[in-house]
Amino acid sequence: MMQTPLLLSSFIKRAEQYFPNKLIISRTGENSIHRIPYREFAKRTRKLADALTKLGMVHGTKVGSFAWNHHRHLEAYFGVPGTGAILHMINIRLSPEHIAYVINHAGDEILLVDDNLFPHLEKLAPYLKTVKHYIIMGDSTEIPETSLENVHSYEALLAEASEDFVFPEDLDENTPAGMCYTSATTGNPKGVVYTHRGLVLHSYALGLADAMGLSERDVILPVVPMFHVNAWGMPFAAVFFGTTQVLPGPGLNPKLLLDLIEQEKVTVTAGVPTIWLAVLKEQEESPRDLSSLRAVVSGGSASPKGLIRAFEEKLGVPFIVGYGMTETSPLVSLSVYSSGMTDLTMDEKIDVRALQGMPMPGLEVRIVNEAGDAPWDGKTMGELAIRGPWIASEYYNDERTAEAFRDGWLFTGDIAVMTEFGYLKLMDRTKDLIKSGGEWISSVDLENALMTHEDVFEAAVIAIPHEQWIERPLACVVLKERKVADEEMKQRLLTYLAGQFAKLWVPDDVVFLDEIPKTSVGKFLKASLRNQLTEHYQQV
Amino acid sequence: MMQTPLLLSSFIKRAEQYFPNKLIISRTGENSIHRIPYREFAKRTRKLADALTKLGMVHGTKVGSFAWNHHRHLEAYFGVPGTGAILHMINIRLSPEHIAYVINHAGDEILLVDDNLFPHLEKLAPYLKTVKHYIIMGDSTEIPETSLENVHSYEALLAEASEDFVFPEDLDENTPAGMCYTSATTGNPKGVVYTHRGLVLHSYALGLADAMGLSERDVILPVVPMFHVNAWGMPFAAVFFGTTQVLPGPGLNPKLLLDLIEQEKVTVTAGVPTIWLAVLKEQEESPRDLSSLRAVVSGGSASPKGLIRAFEEKLGVPFIVGYGMTETSPLVSLSVYSSGMTDLTMDEKIDVRALQGMPMPGLEVRIVNEAGDAPWDGKTMGELAIRGPWIASEYYNDERTAEAFRDGWLFTGDIAVMTEFGYLKLMDRTKDLIKSGGEWISSVDLENALMTHEDVFEAAVIAIPHEQWIERPLACVVLKERKVADEEMKQRLLTYLAGQFAKLWVPDDVVFLDEIPKTSVGKFLKASLRNQLTEHYQQV
Repeated sequence: MMQTPLLLSSFIKRAEQYFPNKLIISRTGENSIHRIPYREFAKRTRKLADALTKLGMVHGTKVGSFAWNHHRHLEAYFGVPGTGAILHMINIRLSPEHIAYVINHAGDEILLVDDNLFPHLEKLAPYLKTVKHYIIMGDSTEIPETSLENVHSYEALLAEASEDFVFPEDLDENTPAGMCYTSATTGNPKGVVYTHRGLVLHSYALGLADAMGLSERDVILPVVPMFHVNAWGMPFAAVFFGTTQVLPGPGLNPKLLLDLIEQEKVTVTAGVPTIWLAVLKEQEESPRDLSSLRAVVSGGSASPKGLIRAFEEKLGVPFIVGYGMTETSPLVSLSVYSSGMTDLTMDEKIDVRALQGMPMPGLEVRIVNEAGDAPWDGKTMGELAIRGPWIASEYYNDERTAEAFRDGWLFTGDIAVMTEFGYLKLMDRTKDLIKSGGEWISSVDLENALMTHEDVFEAAVIAIPHEQWIERPLACVVLKERKVADEEMKQRLLTYLAGQFAKLWVPDDVVFLDEIPKTSVGKFLKASLRNQLTEHYQQV
Repeated sequence: MMQTPLLLSSFIKRAEQYFPNKLIISRTGENSIHRIPYREFAKRTRKLADALTKLGMVHGTKVGSFAWNHHRHLEAYFGVPGTGAILHMINIRLSPEHIAYVINHAGDEILLVDDNLFPHLEKLAPYLKTVKHYIIMGDSTEIPETSLENVHSYEALLAEASEDFVFPEDLDENTPAGMCYTSATTGNPKGVVYTHRGLVLHSYALGLADAMGLSERDVILPVVPMFHVNAWGMPFAAVFFGTTQVLPGPGLNPKLLLDLIEQEKVTVTAGVPTIWLAVLKEQEESPRDLSSLRAVVSGGSASPKGLIRAFEEKLGVPFIVGYGMTETSPLVSLSVYSSGMTDLTMDEKIDVRALQGMPMPGLEVRIVNEAGDAPWDGKTMGELAIRGPWIASEYYNDERTAEAFRDGWLFTGDIAVMTEFGYLKLMDRTKDLIKSGGEWISSVDLENALMTHEDVFEAAVIAIPHEQWIERPLACVVLKERKVADEEMKQRLLTYLAGQFAKLWVPDDVVFLDEIPKTSVGKFLKASLRNQLTEHYQQV
């Protein structure tokens, strides 16, 4: 067989040859929508590569992006790695300290920054040790007023650049192409490096009929940010398959998303559950035509069953839960129905959707606990370990590599069970698991149950130290509205749980909060909740 | 990223873990149908590996198979390469001389032979220089009476073997896994070696929503033989995805195929046009319930539009034309509709289906003629050249490599045009192209047009030497029945063509034949037709 390497540059070539008129619909700000055919996109991508090369980008140079989802960010997705350089997609929601840390740690020499985000980054400039150039991504060729030197306009650079730049065809497929940092429980974020090979194989997986089935016929809307695990890899796959993509830009809100879905006839969209809860509320208040949608993909944290049911039953839109993490590129599994499930009742189908689904062809998973590999029985919990060609093998220049990567496997820190039919069910983070009297209690299971209660808006369950049981669960609940006295509501909720769980699992207490603290990507910040409430509890 | 190699053994592991109860439905003879769950299949595959290892199979050993489509052949597809050895799938329809040649040339040390094919091979045994063991594949543990030594029963060997055999996980993904020989115009067949990497990537391509979309929910029936380019790779992909597969065994006929489709609720089937013509006739005479079918894939030679129309319009079954060859694993392209085609009329849609379709993601194609790369205009002909990770880079130990493999591309010997929308249209084999007065005339285009005429059963068009024009087309026609005098019919057919083609393209003459000679895989044997008719012509 030919030793043709798996390279991202082949995607651009393909899009240009086969799908020259298919569109990237890119929103760069209020009232600013660009409709860019792939033919034009491919040219601009080569121009970007030429412009950055003139600024000194060579094989292995780190180029950071600090940007929302739009066509210029997509151009960087290809124009940078196509040359053998590496695109570092910086999470704009990190704390300023962490933003400076990841830029310095990666060693970014060029930063591509959205015009509306530049003021934020400009303040950090004195702390950035390796950055030589700032390139402002905006519709204008002007650069904003700034005291910094070496600030360029993206569009001005492209106007000067050559569209005849040629991406090398002989790169090793294991060449790094991109990197993202993932937040750590303590300490600085940890870097994950993606290779061309990994991203190409991940793109194939996204196109499989048994996965997302991304196709030329689709119109995708990645709500998940492009700085968050490559927007789950969808922008890469979309260029490969000639899929129309809608990149929604800054200032995302449910109204805007629903408008885009309706106007652009979006077929597949993907994001975190928090977004879908808000979208659902907006759709109920002001219904749009969602008949084009064939799948809403939800991941990043557990999706409440009520949410799944609302999409599937009320809106008639398949709601597919997925699992992945920064270290896994991220697609590990999706809750797609398999052939044996056609005769399930609606309730049973929603139970399946709420699982994390079957791991992708090409990946291997294990459920590991103290006794070794757990049986696939839907009951025995263990830490989820994963292996495969789009799974990271290390954290970039980081001593914490040894904690997660052992014996050729990634130990995810997630506690899961595997059903008999091969679907993952996430039970908890190892650090959030409640160990009570020798038994493991899943906080996520309790949360999901609480969130199916009609009066509950959000719920988090955390471990509270306990003299006899070591740990006991405490329910932290945000109500939709305060209908009855707290004590009365607490009893109602505990009774509700008692009907569904073994006695040991039912929390000892419920506290009512105004909101649950969340991370920059919308996950419950349980560490902060634990600190806050442990204190609170001890005072009581 | 982890350096996890792409290996076929991972497919078995996946099928066993995730799809233990999904079935391989295997017909090994009349009234002999086996229903084997993947759980059992995986065990038998490991037993086969153990048994063959005990017989001396090591890394790199060539093991030949001489067999129809059934579960034992599928076990060999995995049990042999899983260990690092190589399965050589021998085309049982080759001439005895060529069968002996390919076995000797490959250096097969072990032959896996169907019980009903053994008498055929036994006669060749004196000429086979490298074969040490014959293993008879049949339902019985008895071996047939034979004067040969070292003849074993497959089932008896498996009964003695261990199911605990472990496939190595650290094979290089570029390790050869299989080989097939392809017939040459002159001389001996040419060998193509498939690697694990190539077959894994090819399997991903088969699962793409924009390709065949093979899925766990499918029930596939590969009519194309497993000795003919890995049954187009479908058996490999089916194990990867947990697809139910129906392997139809020996003595294939249209009645049997239709019965299997109906009984097993087949969703996808694939084979050559000759088969589908016969199946269509049988279905019209004795209709079965074909409502489960979502695609009939047709390749190997051009599919007449009348055939496509009958399947699409009369039977309501999508009829997808594909292109590939032994050197390409074989999937190159499929005539799947893309998003811009939804508003086409039925006639236009059938025109699209008759094309060879869009090349797969991961492959690159060129149309090369004397002027260089031809434009994608649907008109300019050139030789089709292909590059990609599941395209062969050479013929195995063969000096003819240099003819086809040049500058990193496979030159296919097929003349094609590329439409503006990126669909291949095959015009001819380079050697069958008619070069008349400086113009290229496609024999395939003329044949397809003739075969849409209501009185024509089959038609081949060949070049006849001509003093002034160098070559001129001659139509060779098999009529459904002789309704009128030959001269009258000839005029009707020429008038029919004159309405569709430029004057220069219309053949000078039509000859009526009882049948058109075909190769072992059902393709027109034009070389033989040319010899036969050139003589005939010169005598007239």
